[in-house]
Parts: sequence; structure tokens; C-alpha cells
Amino acid sequence: MEIVIIAHNIRSVLNLGSIFRTAEGFGVRKIYLSGYTPNWHSNLPHVRQKMSKQIHKTALGAEEIVVSEYVPDLIAKIAEQKKDGWRIVGLEQDARAILLPDYKPSGKIALLLGEEVGGIENQLRQLCDDLIEIPMRGQKESFNVAVATGVALYDLTTRR
Amino acid sequence: MEIVIIAHNIRSVLNLGSIFRTAEGFGVRKIYLSGYTPNWHSNLPHVRQKMSKQIHKTALGAEEIVVSEYVPDLIAKIAEQKKDGWRIVGLEQDARAILLPDYKPSGKIALLLGEEVGGIENQLRQLCDDLIEIPMRGQKESFNVAVATGVALYDLTTRR
Repeated sequence: MEIVIIAHNIRSVLNLGSIFRTAEGFGVRKIYLSGYTPNWHSNLPHVRQKMSKQIHKTALGAEEIVVSEYVPDLIAKIAEQKKDGWRIVGLEQDARAILLPDYKPSGKIALLLGEEVGGIENQLRQLCDDLIEIPMRGQKESFNVAVATGVALYDLTTRR
Repeated sequence: MEIVIIAHNIRSVLNLGSIFRTAEGFGVRKIYLSGYTPNWHSNLPHVRQKMSKQIHKTALGAEEIVVSEYVPDLIAKIAEQKKDGWRIVGLEQDARAILLPDYKPSGKIALLLGEEVGGIENQLRQLCDDLIEIPMRGQKESFNVAVATGVALYDLTTRR
């Protein structure tokens, strides 16, 4: 199964680094950066240098292995991905989300991650082919985005 | 399935907080702190105050929900747990480790986590009833400890 990640509006560069490390461990080859996710490929050398240093703290070198690319227009990118046969799968708590253990993936998956607190914005949820949700058994309502990414990638890459 | 966590020699209080948040989300009720894992129940008020503040950054309140206890002698504690019917399951890459998707858990599980870089020390590995390992598909050799905890808890609580 081929999987890429779309990291949209990830606020924290430490979370982004952790997503790189986690994705690399599960064999993901590409991460698209979008919205206000730290664009560590910035054309401004001082921004690039600062962000590269920060992302390395939690990515631990995975940022050099997993290819990444900044996407200025995510809506257009998603339309293009759909045309190319990618299924857009949002990792999000939502009334129409399928519980991860019940999800039957197929084909090429673009796993969409949203903002740490607010999650995936509504307009983008509408564009998702599927929404998947990790079952929660506690009182709190969410997982850290890198932990959630690890759980989803484990399930998608191991259980099929 | 009843699961507790033993967090042994976790170096970073931010990782420990993330373990609390992750564990709470999967319904874990208790975390034992051991070795040089930040003992945020310290008797010294200024240490306790500082650590509580730090752990909260990533635990986000889960540290108030999941019961935790500092264990001064882990070897003795493990012996006691075994007598009480707990199975000690180390999350660790090891020649004798079972791949997580192939693992068939049973009974009450005490999930042992080791140090971020060195993992579970040898003496403790010997005491584990089982060792489990997350399949890795990249070039790097490990996951962040909180991400790995999330993956293991997801598998143990969801797939059975």
C-alpha cells in the first residue's frame, strides 16, 4: 500500500518533526506541507536554517529521508491527487468518520492531518473520500497529532 | 483487558507527559514511574511544582486522571506484580521479541517502557514474560517512546 501524508496547518515544528520520524518508520516516502505548517523549505535562508534545526530535534534525521514539498494551494493539489487515483483520507473525529479498526483501505492513500487543536477544517473534510477516527477509551478527547499519525500508519501498513 | 504502564528511565518529562496523554486516551488507569523517570510526586515541593508544570505541557490534564506512583525498587515491584497475575510485557526491539501484529496477549498486562535511546536494560528484559516490537519499514531504527506507546496500546486494546 502506498501512503503519503498531507500535513496541513500543523502549528508546532516539534510535532512536524515527530510526524517525519514516525512516517519514516512506517515507510512513508513523501510528506506534503500546507497552510501554516512550518515550511522548512522556505526560500529565505535564515528561516530555512532555523526551521531545519528545530525540525531535526524530533525528526532525528528522518527529515533527510522522507521527501517533502510545500503545497501553496491544497485544494488544487487534492483535486490533482484525486485525478491521479489517490484516496484522500482525513484523520479526524467526525460524525461520519469510520473507526480505524473497521476501516478497509484500498489503493493509494493520502493521509490528511489537521491542526493540533481545531483539527481538519470543514471545507477540507468535505473533500475527503473517507474520514477515519481512532477509538478513544478515556475522558480526554484527542491524541497528540504525531501519536495519532503513528497509530493510523501502523494500522494501515500492518493490518492489511 | 487490563493494562498498566511501567515507565522506567524515561529521560524527558515532555515524553512522560505525552505517555500520560496517550495512555489516558486508551483507557490505561495507572502508570508506575521508576528509575530516573521524572518523579513528579517528589516530596520536595519546588521539584514537584516544577515537574507538574512541565508534565502538564504535553499531558494536558491526563496526569490528573491517570493514577501514578513512584516505584523505588522496580525488581521487587515486578516480582510482586507477577505474583498478582500480571504479565510483564516489554516494548523493545530484541532478537526474541514478537512482532506486535503477531502477539496474542492474555490476562493483565504491565507494559514496560525503557529509556528513549538505550531502551530497556538487559536485567529487566530478562524479567519480561514477553517482549513485543513494532514492525519498522524505514531506514531509521526506532520510534519516539510516546508514539510507540500509542501504537502498542492501540493494538492491545483494539485488535482483541
